[in-house]
Amino acid sequence: MTVKKMNITRHEGKVTKEERCSRNQANSVLIWLTGLSASGKSTIAYELERLLFDAGRSVYVLDGDNVRYGLNKDLGFSEDDRRENLRRIGEIAKLFVDAGVITIAAFISPYRYDRRMIRSLFSEKGFIEIYVRCPLEVCEERDPKGLYKKARKGEIPNFTGVSDPYEIPEHPELIVDTSLLSADESVDMIFQYIKAKKIIDN
Amino acid sequence: MTVKKMNITRHEGKVTKEERCSRNQANSVLIWLTGLSASGKSTIAYELERLLFDAGRSVYVLDGDNVRYGLNKDLGFSEDDRRENLRRIGEIAKLFVDAGVITIAAFISPYRYDRRMIRSLFSEKGFIEIYVRCPLEVCEERDPKGLYKKARKGEIPNFTGVSDPYEIPEHPELIVDTSLLSADESVDMIFQYIKAKKIIDN
Repeated sequence: MTVKKMNITRHEGKVTKEERCSRNQANSVLIWLTGLSASGKSTIAYELERLLFDAGRSVYVLDGDNVRYGLNKDLGFSEDDRRENLRRIGEIAKLFVDAGVITIAAFISPYRYDRRMIRSLFSEKGFIEIYVRCPLEVCEERDPKGLYKKARKGEIPNFTGVSDPYEIPEHPELIVDTSLLSADESVDMIFQYIKAKKIIDN
Repeated sequence: MTVKKMNITRHEGKVTKEERCSRNQANSVLIWLTGLSASGKSTIAYELERLLFDAGRSVYVLDGDNVRYGLNKDLGFSEDDRRENLRRIGEIAKLFVDAGVITIAAFISPYRYDRRMIRSLFSEKGFIEIYVRCPLEVCEERDPKGLYKKARKGEIPNFTGVSDPYEIPEHPELIVDTSLLSADESVDMIFQYIKAKKIIDN
Protein backbone atom coordinates (compact mmCIF):
# COMPACT_ATOMS: atom_id res chain seq x y z
CA MET A 1 0.00 0.00 0.00
CA THR A 2 1.39 3.38 -0.87
CA VAL A 3 1.42 6.36 1.42
CA LYS A 4 -1.30 8.03 -0.57
CA LYS A 5 -3.68 5.12 -0.16
CA MET A 6 -3.05 4.78 3.55
CA ASN A 7 -5.85 5.64 5.89
CA ILE A 8 -3.90 8.31 7.68
CA THR A 9 -4.82 11.93 8.12
CA ARG A 10 -1.76 13.80 7.03
CA HIS A 11 -1.01 17.14 8.56
CA GLU A 12 1.16 19.79 7.10
CA GLY A 13 4.51 20.92 8.34
CA LYS A 14 6.85 19.84 11.06
CA VAL A 15 5.58 17.86 13.99
CA THR A 16 5.41 20.29 16.87
CA LYS A 17 6.31 19.73 20.49
CA GLU A 18 2.68 20.49 21.33
CA GLU A 19 1.46 17.64 19.11
CA ARG A 20 3.94 15.29 20.75
CA CYS A 21 2.95 16.33 24.28
CA SER A 22 -0.70 16.05 23.45
CA ARG A 23 -0.21 12.47 22.29
CA ASN A 24 1.85 11.69 25.39
CA GLN A 25 -0.80 13.30 27.63
CA ALA A 26 2.02 15.04 29.42
CA ASN A 27 4.11 18.16 29.24
CA SER A 28 7.61 17.13 28.40
CA VAL A 29 9.91 18.47 31.09
CA LEU A 30 13.38 17.83 32.35
CA ILE A 31 13.38 16.40 35.87
CA TRP A 32 16.87 17.03 37.19
CA LEU A 33 17.98 14.96 40.19
CA THR A 34 21.01 16.39 41.97
CA GLY A 35 22.71 15.08 45.08
CA LEU A 36 25.73 13.32 46.52
CA SER A 37 27.05 10.04 45.23
CA ALA A 38 24.96 7.24 46.80
CA SER A 39 22.14 9.61 47.72
CA GLY A 40 19.77 7.48 45.61
CA LYS A 41 19.42 9.57 42.42
CA SER A 42 19.66 6.73 39.91
CA THR A 43 17.41 4.40 41.87
CA ILE A 44 14.76 7.09 42.04
CA ALA A 45 15.26 7.99 38.37
CA TYR A 46 14.71 4.44 37.13
CA GLU A 47 11.79 3.76 39.47
CA LEU A 48 10.14 6.98 38.35
CA GLU A 49 10.79 6.06 34.72
CA ARG A 50 9.18 2.64 35.26
CA LEU A 51 6.17 4.22 36.91
CA LEU A 52 5.63 6.78 34.14
CA PHE A 53 6.23 4.23 31.41
CA ASP A 54 3.71 1.83 32.92
CA ALA A 55 1.31 4.78 33.04
CA GLY A 56 1.66 4.99 29.25
CA ARG A 57 4.10 7.87 28.98
CA SER A 58 7.21 8.39 26.87
CA VAL A 59 9.99 8.78 29.37
CA TYR A 60 13.75 8.36 29.35
CA VAL A 61 16.57 8.49 31.89
CA LEU A 62 19.90 10.14 31.23
CA ASP A 63 22.63 9.22 33.67
CA GLY A 64 26.30 8.42 33.81
CA ASP A 65 25.75 4.92 32.47
CA ASN A 66 24.40 5.94 29.09
CA VAL A 67 26.16 9.28 28.65
CA ARG A 68 29.65 8.98 30.05
CA TYR A 69 30.55 5.93 27.96
CA GLY A 70 29.09 7.21 24.73
CA LEU A 71 28.66 10.85 23.88
CA ASN A 72 31.00 12.10 26.57
CA LYS A 73 33.68 9.45 26.46
CA ASP A 74 36.11 12.12 25.26
CA LEU A 75 35.73 13.98 28.55
CA GLY A 76 37.58 13.47 31.82
CA PHE A 77 36.93 14.85 35.29
CA SER A 78 38.71 18.19 35.21
CA GLU A 79 36.60 21.20 36.05
CA ASP A 80 36.30 22.16 32.37
CA ASP A 81 35.41 18.66 31.31
CA ARG A 82 32.79 18.29 34.03
CA ARG A 83 31.22 21.54 32.94
CA GLU A 84 31.23 20.45 29.28
CA ASN A 85 29.79 17.09 30.36
CA LEU A 86 26.83 18.85 31.95
CA ARG A 87 26.43 21.33 29.11
CA ARG A 88 26.07 18.49 26.63
CA ILE A 89 23.66 16.63 28.90
CA GLY A 90 21.55 19.76 29.09
CA GLU A 91 21.51 20.04 25.30
CA ILE A 92 20.62 16.37 24.79
CA ALA A 93 17.87 16.70 27.38
CA LYS A 94 16.58 19.66 25.39
CA LEU A 95 16.30 17.49 22.28
CA PHE A 96 14.46 14.78 24.24
CA VAL A 97 12.08 17.33 25.72
CA ASP A 98 11.54 18.74 22.22
CA ALA A 99 10.74 15.20 21.12
CA GLY A 100 7.93 15.15 23.71
CA VAL A 101 9.69 12.79 26.10
CA ILE A 102 9.56 13.28 29.88
CA THR A 103 13.27 13.31 30.60
CA ILE A 104 14.84 12.38 33.92
CA ALA A 105 18.49 13.19 34.53
CA ALA A 106 20.46 11.85 37.48
CA PHE A 107 23.81 13.55 37.99
CA ILE A 108 25.68 14.73 41.08
CA SER A 109 25.99 18.17 39.43
CA PRO A 110 27.55 19.75 42.52
CA TYR A 111 27.76 23.36 41.32
CA ARG A 112 24.94 25.89 41.30
CA TYR A 113 26.46 27.57 38.29
CA ASP A 114 26.09 24.45 36.16
CA ARG A 115 22.59 23.68 37.33
CA ARG A 116 21.58 27.26 36.58
CA MET A 117 23.13 26.97 33.13
CA ILE A 118 21.03 23.89 32.40
CA ARG A 119 17.90 25.50 33.81
CA SER A 120 18.45 28.44 31.45
CA LEU A 121 18.01 26.11 28.45
CA PHE A 122 14.40 25.43 29.40
CA SER A 123 11.17 27.31 29.89
CA GLU A 124 10.20 28.23 33.43
CA LYS A 125 7.91 25.24 33.77
CA GLY A 126 10.15 22.97 31.72
CA PHE A 127 12.82 22.36 34.33
CA ILE A 128 12.25 20.72 37.68
CA GLU A 129 15.21 20.61 40.01
CA ILE A 130 14.93 17.97 42.69
CA TYR A 131 17.44 17.89 45.47
CA VAL A 132 17.98 14.29 46.52
CA ARG A 133 19.11 15.05 50.03
CA CYS A 134 21.02 12.60 52.14
CA PRO A 135 23.59 13.38 54.85
CA LEU A 136 27.17 12.67 53.82
CA GLU A 137 27.57 10.18 56.70
CA VAL A 138 24.64 8.12 55.42
CA CYS A 139 25.98 8.18 51.84
CA GLU A 140 29.37 7.08 53.12
CA GLU A 141 27.80 4.26 55.09
CA ARG A 142 25.89 3.05 52.02
CA ASP A 143 28.89 3.44 49.68
CA PRO A 144 27.63 0.72 47.29
CA LYS A 145 30.55 1.07 44.90
CA GLY A 146 33.21 1.67 47.55
CA LEU A 147 33.88 5.10 46.09
CA TYR A 148 33.88 7.01 49.37
CA LYS A 149 36.38 4.57 50.82
CA LYS A 150 38.68 5.15 47.85
CA ALA A 151 38.16 8.89 48.02
CA ARG A 152 39.05 8.96 51.73
CA LYS A 153 42.25 7.09 50.92
CA GLY A 154 43.01 9.77 48.33
CA GLU A 155 42.66 7.33 45.44
CA ILE A 156 39.93 9.43 43.78
CA PRO A 157 40.75 13.12 43.53
CA ASN A 158 38.06 15.81 43.49
CA PHE A 159 35.40 13.59 44.98
CA THR A 160 32.21 15.49 45.78
CA GLY A 161 31.55 15.66 49.51
CA VAL A 162 35.06 14.50 50.42
CA SER A 163 37.59 16.64 48.60
CA ASP A 164 35.24 18.73 46.48
CA PRO A 165 32.25 20.81 47.57
CA TYR A 166 28.59 20.09 46.96
CA GLU A 167 26.61 23.29 46.67
CA ILE A 168 23.17 22.68 48.15
CA PRO A 169 20.34 23.83 45.84
CA GLU A 170 18.91 27.12 47.07
CA HIS A 171 15.53 27.00 45.36
CA PRO A 172 14.88 23.48 44.11
CA GLU A 173 11.34 22.70 43.03
CA LEU A 174 11.37 19.75 45.43
CA ILE A 175 13.51 18.11 48.10
CA VAL A 176 13.36 14.39 48.79
CA ASP A 177 15.31 13.18 51.76
CA THR A 178 16.37 9.59 51.20
CA SER A 179 17.62 9.17 54.75
CA LEU A 180 13.99 9.55 55.83
CA LEU A 181 12.05 8.17 52.84
CA SER A 182 12.30 4.86 51.02
CA ALA A 183 12.88 4.88 47.26
CA ASP A 184 9.19 4.10 46.71
CA GLU A 185 8.16 6.97 48.96
CA SER A 186 10.57 9.33 47.24
CA VAL A 187 9.21 8.39 43.81
CA ASP A 188 5.68 8.75 45.10
CA MET A 189 6.48 12.25 46.35
CA ILE A 190 7.84 13.27 42.94
CA PHE A 191 4.86 11.71 41.21
CA GLN A 192 2.46 13.67 43.42
CA TYR A 193 4.36 16.82 42.59
CA ILE A 194 4.22 16.39 38.82
CA LYS A 195 0.53 15.58 39.01
CA ALA A 196 -0.12 18.64 41.15
CA LYS A 197 1.76 20.74 38.61
CA LYS A 198 -0.36 19.16 35.84
CA ILE A 199 2.69 17.85 34.04
CA ILE A 200 0.69 14.73 33.54
CA ASP A 201 -3.08 14.38 33.66
CA ASN A 202 -4.39 11.34 35.35
CA MET B 1 -4.02 9.26 44.81
CA THR B 2 -0.72 7.69 45.73
CA VAL B 3 1.33 5.47 43.47
CA LYS B 4 0.43 2.40 45.45
CA LYS B 5 -3.27 2.98 44.98
CA MET B 6 -2.97 3.70 41.25
CA ASN B 7 -4.42 1.19 38.88
CA ILE B 8 -1.15 0.54 37.11
CA THR B 9 0.59 -2.78 36.67
CA ARG B 10 4.09 -2.13 37.85
CA HIS B 11 6.91 -4.12 36.36
CA GLU B 12 10.30 -4.62 37.89
CA GLY B 13 13.56 -3.21 36.69
CA LYS B 14 14.61 -0.83 34.02
CA VAL B 15 12.36 -0.18 31.05
CA THR B 16 13.93 -2.09 28.18
CA LYS B 17 14.28 -1.05 24.57
CA GLU B 18 12.10 -4.03 23.67
CA GLU B 19 9.25 -2.76 25.85
CA ARG B 20 9.55 0.66 24.25
CA CYS B 21 9.57 -0.74 20.71
CA SER B 22 6.64 -3.00 21.48
CA ARG B 23 4.60 -0.02 22.63
CA ASN B 24 5.66 1.96 19.55
CA GLN B 25 4.80 -0.99 17.27
CA ALA B 26 8.09 -0.39 15.54
CA ASN B 27 11.72 -1.30 15.80
CA SER B 28 13.63 1.80 16.67
CA VAL B 29 16.27 2.37 14.03
CA LEU B 30 18.43 5.18 12.82
CA ILE B 31 17.53 6.26 9.30
CA TRP B 32 20.56 8.14 8.02
CA LEU B 33 20.06 10.43 5.03
CA THR B 34 23.29 11.40 3.29
CA GLY B 35 23.72 13.54 0.19
CA LEU B 36 24.81 16.87 -1.20
CA SER B 37 23.57 20.19 0.08
CA ALA B 38 20.16 20.88 -1.54
CA SER B 39 19.66 17.23 -2.46
CA GLY B 40 16.45 17.20 -0.40
CA LYS B 41 17.54 15.40 2.77
CA SER B 42 15.78 17.66 5.28
CA THR B 43 12.57 17.89 3.26
CA ILE B 44 12.41 14.12 3.08
CA ALA B 45 13.33 13.76 6.77
CA TYR B 46 10.52 16.03 7.96
CA GLU B 47 7.93 14.58 5.59
CA LEU B 48 8.85 11.08 6.71
CA GLU B 49 8.65 12.18 10.33
CA ARG B 50 5.18 13.64 9.74
CA LEU B 51 4.02 10.45 8.07
CA LEU B 52 5.30 8.19 10.84
CA PHE B 53 4.00 10.48 13.58
CA ASP B 54 0.54 10.57 11.99
CA ALA B 55 0.74 6.78 11.85
CA GLY B 56 1.09 6.82 15.66
CA ARG B 57 4.81 6.32 15.99
CA SER B 58 7.43 8.01 18.14
CA VAL B 59 9.81 9.59 15.68
CA TYR B 60 12.31 12.43 15.76
CA VAL B 61 14.53 14.24 13.26
CA LEU B 62 18.10 15.25 14.01
CA ASP B 63 19.53 17.77 11.58
CA GLY B 64 21.73 20.82 11.49
CA ASP B 65 18.94 23.03 12.80
CA ASN B 66 18.59 21.37 16.17
CA VAL B 67 22.12 20.07 16.67
CA ARG B 68 24.54 22.65 15.30
CA TYR B 69 23.13 25.50 17.37
CA GLY B 70 22.85 23.54 20.58
CA LEU B 71 24.95 20.55 21.46
CA ASN B 72 27.57 21.21 18.82
CA LYS B 73 27.77 24.96 18.97
CA ASP B 74 31.35 24.62 20.22
CA LEU B 75 32.39 23.00 16.93
CA GLY B 76 33.48 24.62 13.67
CA PHE B 77 33.95 23.17 10.22
CA SER B 78 37.51 21.89 10.35
CA GLU B 79 37.96 18.23 9.49
CA ASP B 80 38.34 17.29 13.17
CA ASP B 81 35.32 19.32 14.20
CA ARG B 82 33.17 17.84 11.44
CA ARG B 83 34.15 14.37 12.53
CA GLU B 84 33.38 15.19 16.17
CA ASN B 85 30.07 16.72 15.04
CA LEU B 86 29.07 13.44 13.43
CA ARG B 87 30.40 11.30 16.27
CA ARG B 88 28.20 13.18 18.73
CA ILE B 89 25.20 12.95 16.42
CA GLY B 90 25.73 9.20 16.21
CA GLU B 91 25.83 8.95 20.00
CA ILE B 92 22.70 11.06 20.47
CA ALA B 93 20.92 8.99 17.86
CA LYS B 94 21.91 5.92 19.84
CA LEU B 95 20.20 7.34 22.93
CA PHE B 96 17.05 8.12 20.93
CA VAL B 97 17.02 4.63 19.43
CA ASP B 98 17.52 3.20 22.92
CA ALA B 99 14.52 5.29 23.99
CA GLY B 100 12.45 3.45 21.36
CA VAL B 101 12.21 6.40 18.98
CA ILE B 102 12.50 5.98 15.21
CA THR B 103 15.29 8.45 14.55
CA ILE B 104 15.88 10.22 11.25
CA ALA B 105 19.15 12.05 10.68
CA ALA B 106 19.76 14.39 7.75
CA PHE B 107 23.39 15.38 7.31
CA ILE B 108 25.62 15.77 4.25
CA SER B 109 28.14 13.40 5.93
CA PRO B 110 30.41 13.29 2.88
CA TYR B 111 32.95 10.74 4.10
CA ARG B 112 32.55 6.97 4.09
CA TYR B 113 34.78 6.74 7.13
CA ASP B 114 32.37 8.79 9.25
CA ARG B 115 29.27 7.03 8.02
CA ARG B 116 30.91 3.69 8.78
CA MET B 117 31.82 4.92 12.26
CA ILE B 118 28.18 5.82 12.92
CA ARG B 119 26.95 2.52 11.49
CA SER B 120 29.30 0.70 13.86
CA LEU B 121 27.37 2.12 16.85
CA PHE B 122 24.24 0.21 15.82
CA SER B 123 23.12 -3.35 15.30
CA GLU B 124 23.07 -4.68 11.75
CA LYS B 125 19.37 -3.98 11.36
CA GLY B 126 19.48 -0.83 13.45
CA PHE B 127 21.09 1.45 10.86
CA ILE B 128 19.61 2.31 7.49
CA GLU B 129 21.79 4.39 5.21
CA ILE B 130 19.85 6.17 2.53
CA TYR B 131 21.70 7.92 -0.24
CA VAL B 132 19.70 10.96 -1.30
CA ARG B 133 21.11 11.17 -4.80
CA CYS B 134 20.91 14.29 -6.89
CA PRO B 135 23.38 15.43 -9.55
CA LEU B 136 25.54 18.34 -8.48
CA GLU B 137 24.21 20.47 -11.39
CA VAL B 138 20.66 20.03 -10.14
CA CYS B 139 21.62 20.87 -6.56
CA GLU B 140 23.44 23.97 -7.81
CA GLU B 141 20.42 25.00 -9.81
CA ARG B 142 18.13 24.62 -6.78
CA ASP B 143 20.58 26.33 -4.41
CA PRO B 144 17.78 27.50 -2.04
CA LYS B 145 20.15 29.18 0.39
CA GLY B 146 22.58 30.53 -2.21
CA LEU B 147 25.35 28.43 -0.72
CA TYR B 148 26.67 27.01 -3.99
CA LYS B 149 26.92 30.50 -5.42
CA LYS B 150 28.97 31.61 -2.44
CA ALA B 151 31.10 28.49 -2.58
CA ARG B 152 31.86 29.04 -6.27
CA LYS B 153 32.98 32.56 -5.43
CA GLY B 154 35.29 31.09 -2.81
CA GLU B 155 33.35 32.63 0.05
CA ILE B 156 32.72 29.26 1.71
CA PRO B 157 35.79 27.05 2.00
CA ASN B 158 35.58 23.25 2.01
CA PHE B 159 32.13 23.13 0.47
CA THR B 160 31.07 19.60 -0.36
CA GLY B 161 30.74 19.04 -4.10
CA VAL B 162 32.57 22.25 -4.96
CA SER B 163 35.87 22.35 -3.09
CA ASP B 164 35.50 19.22 -1.00
CA PRO B 165 34.69 15.67 -2.11
CA TYR B 166 31.47 13.76 -1.55
CA GLU B 167 32.15 10.06 -1.28
CA ILE B 168 29.21 8.21 -2.79
CA PRO B 169 27.84 5.46 -0.52
CA GLU B 170 29.00 2.07 -1.77
CA HIS B 171 26.39 -0.11 -0.10
CA PRO B 172 23.54 2.06 1.13
CA GLU B 173 20.36 0.25 2.14
CA LEU B 174 18.45 2.46 -0.27
CA ILE B 175 18.97 5.13 -2.92
CA VAL B 176 16.39 7.80 -3.63
CA ASP B 177 17.07 10.02 -6.59
CA THR B 178 15.44 13.37 -6.04
CA SER B 179 16.13 14.55 -9.58
CA LEU B 180 13.71 11.84 -10.70
CA LEU B 181 11.31 11.56 -7.77
CA SER B 182 9.24 14.17 -5.96
CA ALA B 183 9.63 14.52 -2.19
CA ASP B 184 6.35 12.61 -1.70
CA GLU B 185 7.55 9.81 -3.95
CA SER B 186 10.91 9.67 -2.16
CA VAL B 187 9.21 9.44 1.22
CA ASP B 188 6.85 6.80 -0.14
CA MET B 189 9.81 4.75 -1.33
CA ILE B 190 11.45 4.89 2.10
CA PHE B 191 8.16 4.06 3.78
CA GLN B 192 7.74 0.99 1.54
CA TYR B 193 11.24 -0.07 2.42
CA ILE B 194 10.79 0.13 6.18
CA LYS B 195 7.50 -1.74 5.94
CA ALA B 196 9.10 -4.46 3.80
CA LYS B 197 11.86 -4.77 6.40
CA LYS B 198 9.19 -5.01 9.12
CA ILE B 199 10.57 -1.99 10.95
CA ILE B 200 6.96 -1.02 11.40
CA ASP B 201 3.93 -3.29 11.26
CA ASN B 202 0.95 -1.89 9.55
